[in-house]
Amino acid sequence: MPIYNAPTKDTQFILHDVLKVSQSDIPGYDELESEFTGAVLEEAGKLATNVLHPLNVVGDTEGCRLENGVVRTPTGFKEAFEEVKAGGWTGLDMPEEYGGQNMPYVMGTAVGEMFSASNSAFTMYQGLTHGAASAILAHGTEEQKNTYLPKMVSCDWTGTMNLTEPHCGTDLGLMRTKAEPQADGSYKITGQKIFISSGDHDMADNIIHLVLAKIVGGPEGIKGVSLFIVPKYMVNEDGSLGDRNPATVGKIEEKMGIHGNSTCVMNYDGATGFLIGDEHKGMRAMFTMMNEARLGVGMQGLCQADAAYQNAVEYAKDRLQGRDVTGAKNPEGPADPLIVHPDIRRNLMDQKSFSEGARAFILWGASLIDAAHRKGDKDADGLISLLTPVIKGFLTDEGYDMTVQAQQVYGGHGYIEEWGMSQYTRDARIAMIYEGANGVQALDLVGRKLAADGGKHVMAFFELVKSYIKDNGGQDEAFDRDFLEPLKAASKDLQAAGMYFMQNATNPNNALSGSYDFMHMFGHVCLGLMWAQMGKASLDALAAGTEDKEFYETKLITGRFYMARRLPATGMHLARIQSGGDTVMTLDAASF
Amino acid sequence: MPIYNAPTKDTQFILHDVLKVSQSDIPGYDELESEFTGAVLEEAGKLATNVLHPLNVVGDTEGCRLENGVVRTPTGFKEAFEEVKAGGWTGLDMPEEYGGQNMPYVMGTAVGEMFSASNSAFTMYQGLTHGAASAILAHGTEEQKNTYLPKMVSCDWTGTMNLTEPHCGTDLGLMRTKAEPQADGSYKITGQKIFISSGDHDMADNIIHLVLAKIVGGPEGIKGVSLFIVPKYMVNEDGSLGDRNPATVGKIEEKMGIHGNSTCVMNYDGATGFLIGDEHKGMRAMFTMMNEARLGVGMQGLCQADAAYQNAVEYAKDRLQGRDVTGAKNPEGPADPLIVHPDIRRNLMDQKSFSEGARAFILWGASLIDAAHRKGDKDADGLISLLTPVIKGFLTDEGYDMTVQAQQVYGGHGYIEEWGMSQYTRDARIAMIYEGANGVQALDLVGRKLAADGGKHVMAFFELVKSYIKDNGGQDEAFDRDFLEPLKAASKDLQAAGMYFMQNATNPNNALSGSYDFMHMFGHVCLGLMWAQMGKASLDALAAGTEDKEFYETKLITGRFYMARRLPATGMHLARIQSGGDTVMTLDAASF
Repeated sequence: MPIYNAPTKDTQFILHDVLKVSQSDIPGYDELESEFTGAVLEEAGKLATNVLHPLNVVGDTEGCRLENGVVRTPTGFKEAFEEVKAGGWTGLDMPEEYGGQNMPYVMGTAVGEMFSASNSAFTMYQGLTHGAASAILAHGTEEQKNTYLPKMVSCDWTGTMNLTEPHCGTDLGLMRTKAEPQADGSYKITGQKIFISSGDHDMADNIIHLVLAKIVGGPEGIKGVSLFIVPKYMVNEDGSLGDRNPATVGKIEEKMGIHGNSTCVMNYDGATGFLIGDEHKGMRAMFTMMNEARLGVGMQGLCQADAAYQNAVEYAKDRLQGRDVTGAKNPEGPADPLIVHPDIRRNLMDQKSFSEGARAFILWGASLIDAAHRKGDKDADGLISLLTPVIKGFLTDEGYDMTVQAQQVYGGHGYIEEWGMSQYTRDARIAMIYEGANGVQALDLVGRKLAADGGKHVMAFFELVKSYIKDNGGQDEAFDRDFLEPLKAASKDLQAAGMYFMQNATNPNNALSGSYDFMHMFGHVCLGLMWAQMGKASLDALAAGTEDKEFYETKLITGRFYMARRLPATGMHLARIQSGGDTVMTLDAASF
Repeated sequence: MPIYNAPTKDTQFILHDVLKVSQSDIPGYDELESEFTGAVLEEAGKLATNVLHPLNVVGDTEGCRLENGVVRTPTGFKEAFEEVKAGGWTGLDMPEEYGGQNMPYVMGTAVGEMFSASNSAFTMYQGLTHGAASAILAHGTEEQKNTYLPKMVSCDWTGTMNLTEPHCGTDLGLMRTKAEPQADGSYKITGQKIFISSGDHDMADNIIHLVLAKIVGGPEGIKGVSLFIVPKYMVNEDGSLGDRNPATVGKIEEKMGIHGNSTCVMNYDGATGFLIGDEHKGMRAMFTMMNEARLGVGMQGLCQADAAYQNAVEYAKDRLQGRDVTGAKNPEGPADPLIVHPDIRRNLMDQKSFSEGARAFILWGASLIDAAHRKGDKDADGLISLLTPVIKGFLTDEGYDMTVQAQQVYGGHGYIEEWGMSQYTRDARIAMIYEGANGVQALDLVGRKLAADGGKHVMAFFELVKSYIKDNGGQDEAFDRDFLEPLKAASKDLQAAGMYFMQNATNPNNALSGSYDFMHMFGHVCLGLMWAQMGKASLDALAAGTEDKEFYETKLITGRFYMARRLPATGMHLARIQSGGDTVMTLDAASF
């Protein structure tokens, strides 16, 4: 049975030593004193470790069943969901007027990591509800907000996102689901949606589907797409539940992982829907959900990686196999633990330095969202918009690779289901795909975000890195050499790639065939920046005479590893990019 | 339902245009004329595509069942196994005196690729039998050979390898299974073995287990390990089957993939075994099987990658989604096929250039084995011994990554089991683990093979690359620039890494913490060499006025991609290695 320990101490370090949240002028951040966030995280961690984590394997093994049109969740899910609701966790960062606790998004994110790492499939029920509620909050009428939000904030009702159809995923302009206007202002929705996470289940009284559809007679393609609220049960004026809406489950998909979440084919057979936002502006409303969802999915890369890492470390300390080449470390035992072997350490250091860097990146991203939403900071908004595809694409690719590496530490025991390591890999795999496959993230980054607002945001990012290096250099020779120099070199590689794109823009394929490499370079530079910040914060703590020397020294060692062993990837990506689009585009489609 | 097409044309290209097998002086190679190998491959391909491939999904879905102590294989496996046997495929490269066809190993390998790519789990029953038969051939007495080989060559009886125990995998010195000598010269074998592929099943009359055990009273640790033949049913003097030996299945493991193969816990309860080879020299005998098995497993990396690639290409040509940014390619249709998009092409070119390079590498490796075995070529033997961990480790890591990339082309459809792409990933994952986890391959490469015979073989490899560049340079400017220059640069990186290891050998951790990177660098240089050879062969064919211009031009385009976009990885690996062992070794085990 795998273990999971919530990373409270590490999260606290990032919030307070690195981001210094309580000193920020973002509205609401003044409440985020260390004792307060510590207490919240402590409680969330208990719930994650004691309630959600034990159900992770159960969910994988049992999966969801469709019985007489109703989806049954795995044993224990319903009770655990009640506990999460009772603790008020579902509305942590939602407005008080709808029953939430109005905490900043950064806190919702820190808690969300623990829930998702302990049980990803389970936490999706809540996560999709949060996304759907956010879209209603941003685009709904007052009546819609009052009707749906209180119940969704409490998760008495849960939410879904309905985009994909059998013949269209990324290219939503091909959508066929139609919406026919009715005399009462509602619409009849008809069509089939696939891959609907949490599409149906037995843990909530009602399910609020947000469905993209084309209003009959509207514009062709993506410009004719609108967003609708389609409740499973109609809601009466007094808030009680009315008729069953013909929004039904066709089947539950058999998937590689996240078996505990019901991924449904949904059939809408003239179901009643209510327009949310403007006619034909469905994509704008949906993007409110999707940007949040993309950050959440990026976080899933971290979550599965960290959970897998924790187990790999335990196994490496426990399993006796072979001897340290420099002399036995466990001479009384029959062999030394795996962790003495250099390549096992290389593997574990890859994982550790990724997870801690990714956690800082995610929390920084969440604080940018808070700055944008709570303070109206347009620069923060532009920056997080630029970084969102990097967070989603890079962290899920790397996160997946780390689960594969964790599995590898177990040897053959990593391949059998008994030890639970296969599940981390299988569950992590989806994060590279949903909410926009990672190739689409790369396209979004290079084809749209780089040039947005005249390239202002990417220039701001480079400036941020440059000032960081300037402001923090020249004080500690080892820090300059081990942290700032590698960061500078990696950032230069990234800029050179951007320059290559600009100078070869006559043919857009030069940039687009390098987009994936660019996304990964960008991710490495971000994690390099995070490690530089964490390294500096650790030096400061040590200089101030911290009592927890080991913690901060460990940070420095881990950071040095990332800078020395992971950041050099930027050079490889740059070389690939600079080889040009022709290497990729020349071959005839027929010759593949 | 996935497709699979046997790569007959590509294999023929490698055998005849690149390796020029029929012009070789290796005994038996003179028979390998193009018409002959073409006919063999054609027939093997039909069997793979029409018989084995349709059972691949069946095996994954049904898995194996243990019923009253007997393992039942999935529907159709038994009939397909009979077809493979009837065609004489199981003894293709086995000696005629035991019923084989005495073809070179390179032919067994070329055919094996097709079988394993079409159905990996199924082909393992035959593959392990081949390995066990090879060990008996190399180390058995005349009586043992006559008793077991005819039946094993025909696969009327199948074989297994029994190494791993619950508490020991890589470190076989910890083994507890014991062998007690009996008055009649046999031994009583007692102990438990785990992860025994093809451990039991209903497709053969008898199963010949090769079991490592310690003779009671022998030396401690790995020096006390001997190898035994333990038949499921005792064999009477007349060759008929006698009593059931107490070698029984404890359970079938639940695995991430290769469900069609029965991976068993085997219990030996005083089972009768016969020593094979010398007392306490079991590891030597076992390595005969393991070296062959490692090449075979390296090939599995290629197999799963190529099968997944074939499907990804079909999907990318078929699925309409989005538009080519440089102008619609399918203007009458609702959208363009995925393959117009640069990042999809980048993804597919990664896969294509890997598979074709890997195929050449594997067949070159097999020809080195033939040179060593059939011609007694010691240099070839040394070289393949050096390359074996590279073939196993690099090709299975990369092969797995390619299945993940192929899955990615499908978006959400890659994650549901319906399309079969998840299976390629799940099946490919084991190849990185079994027959020595890839970290152990890296250790074998850097800790043992590099320094073997005074470093003679690695020097010979560098010399081989150097002479190749010298002999083939200066004739075609584009070839020099696109193929030879990158190969030279990559080879220099590899040499620099080797030099770093030598110059920092005081602490072995400097080399060992870079071993995994070194294995990957080495793999890239080998594939670079393969692509240079394939590029040159293609130029020659074009210069000779071939009628199949498209085939050879495609090779050149694919090769240029590999050289430009994949080979630069060596620079990254070198930087990681040169950062030194301290980045990996400094952290206290307790601080992970």
